[in-house]
Amino acid sequence: MKTIILKNRPQGKPTVSNFEFLTEDKEITINTGEILLEAAYVSVDPYLRGRMSDAKSYVPSFELNKPVQSGVVAKVIASKNEKFKEGDFVSGMLNWQTQQVSNGEGLLKVDGSKAPLSTYLGVLGMTGLTAYLGLNQIGKPVAGETIVVSGAAGAVGSIVGQIAKIMGLTVIGIAGTDEKIEMLKTKFGFDAGINYNTSKDINADIKKAAPNGVDIYFDNVGGPISDAVLFNINRFARIIICGAISVYNETELPTSLSVQPFLVKNSALMQGFIVSNYADKFPESMQQLSGWLAEGKLNYTETIVEGFDNIPNAFIDLFEGKNKGKMIVKI
Amino acid sequence: MKTIILKNRPQGKPTVSNFEFLTEDKEITINTGEILLEAAYVSVDPYLRGRMSDAKSYVPSFELNKPVQSGVVAKVIASKNEKFKEGDFVSGMLNWQTQQVSNGEGLLKVDGSKAPLSTYLGVLGMTGLTAYLGLNQIGKPVAGETIVVSGAAGAVGSIVGQIAKIMGLTVIGIAGTDEKIEMLKTKFGFDAGINYNTSKDINADIKKAAPNGVDIYFDNVGGPISDAVLFNINRFARIIICGAISVYNETELPTSLSVQPFLVKNSALMQGFIVSNYADKFPESMQQLSGWLAEGKLNYTETIVEGFDNIPNAFIDLFEGKNKGKMIVKI
Repeated sequence: MKTIILKNRPQGKPTVSNFEFLTEDKEITINTGEILLEAAYVSVDPYLRGRMSDAKSYVPSFELNKPVQSGVVAKVIASKNEKFKEGDFVSGMLNWQTQQVSNGEGLLKVDGSKAPLSTYLGVLGMTGLTAYLGLNQIGKPVAGETIVVSGAAGAVGSIVGQIAKIMGLTVIGIAGTDEKIEMLKTKFGFDAGINYNTSKDINADIKKAAPNGVDIYFDNVGGPISDAVLFNINRFARIIICGAISVYNETELPTSLSVQPFLVKNSALMQGFIVSNYADKFPESMQQLSGWLAEGKLNYTETIVEGFDNIPNAFIDLFEGKNKGKMIVKI
Repeated sequence: MKTIILKNRPQGKPTVSNFEFLTEDKEITINTGEILLEAAYVSVDPYLRGRMSDAKSYVPSFELNKPVQSGVVAKVIASKNEKFKEGDFVSGMLNWQTQQVSNGEGLLKVDGSKAPLSTYLGVLGMTGLTAYLGLNQIGKPVAGETIVVSGAAGAVGSIVGQIAKIMGLTVIGIAGTDEKIEMLKTKFGFDAGINYNTSKDINADIKKAAPNGVDIYFDNVGGPISDAVLFNINRFARIIICGAISVYNETELPTSLSVQPFLVKNSALMQGFIVSNYADKFPESMQQLSGWLAEGKLNYTETIVEGFDNIPNAFIDLFEGKNKGKMIVKI
């Protein structure tokens, strides 16, 4: 049994030296009510970087010398819990461990015959729920409006854009390579894409793609890209703060354009969230997402890395934008 | 008849040279449906600074070489409009002119026997409505919560704090002199005050005054004071962006601490507004404010400057914090 623990907190960009692999070679026994799980797919996500900092910056923080946790799909390989039987697959927040014991709390049974198991970490998991609930609960989209999505080729961003298209919006994505921009337009149906690495003037490029201004901004990145969007927001704009990957690795608190004058001038809203705020809406949201997926209205892209030992590197690669869509490690 | 026009747009802090006085000595005649008004009290407000910039920065901008407008209480000195008679007093957005003609649209009759005429520019006017509606519609205050108000000794801030006290909140005000802090506590019933000019660490002083954190921040100022509040916000905090007086005179777009990481970490909301967004709620709000005023639950402070010619200077003095409470020019 292998475990990945957080050895020390990243200063700036995370490195493999922040993690340590522990190997144990003992028989694992389970008690009544417990199940033994074998990891099948592990999700690596930008928000985990925040949880690796100390509590002053982001809460709740991971404890040092304890296993890192993230979304995991695992197979039940032994069960003394009547709710689960050997061979079931479950998803939930679990340790970065090849095998682990659980009492089943917080775990959801998933069905690999209805959709590929990895999708329960992506479009049918927290990723899809984050996109759907952030967009709807905060963005309150109305057909005919214009939305800009940053981190658009990422796991959440690509789903946000597709849902916005289903709802009748004009969708503009911002991403970091021409290949990603092409994918946004051809695979995910975005109306326009802006490559922030080659754009000479992101503000002007947004103005061109959104001549009527921006009603909703789904922000996964923060930093200068988000500054550029501010110049283009409309009256009563809604800015959904889902993440700030551009600043997660900053060692000093970042500064940027003061948002307050833009918000007061436009009577605009900016709202941060985490998906668990809307836990009461998970069942109906999941039903909607499953429906769209079954109807072929939602595409998704996964970057699948193989091997438990590659979890830290897959996580680190997120900050280089090496993933397209959801980054998943197959064990 | 005297008129004050906007001669040129302020670069940075406004000066008297941005304005020009025109004097005309002709008889004013009115047509059917019109009234002739004589200004009695003129309101000067920080937000007017924004409207003096060009449309790229703040809309709607005042036109050059046209009269500046603000809230004015005026006396009807001639009427050919059946809704108004000679001797009535009205309030509304009017020109900086000693006399002017109006068709009565957008004017509200006010009664000097119920409350002093100047209050219809302050606690019973846009100032009171801005405080009441911003706090309630965006802040959604709950008894037991903690609110911080910046620009607390200003016209809006002092009313916000008192309404929050009526609603059972712990109220902390930030202002720029010890005299103002004393006034917040003795006259307006604030629980604590912080002098940002003498504080060695505003962040630490807020933490001390709000040991349970900040649930609502009513922001009139922006800039470093607002940065300090961010470190103290609670989960699900609401930040009401009413104004940004600290940056109205900046010639470069100001930068400050990136708010996005704080908002996402705390699932917090930041919302800009102008009071006219809630025009449908004016009647009921006015009733509430009048009631509190009559019951002696709302105090107010005015800084009254005398003389039409002093309007520009009174306006300019706002940015030096020379006013306590509502700044009004008595004609």
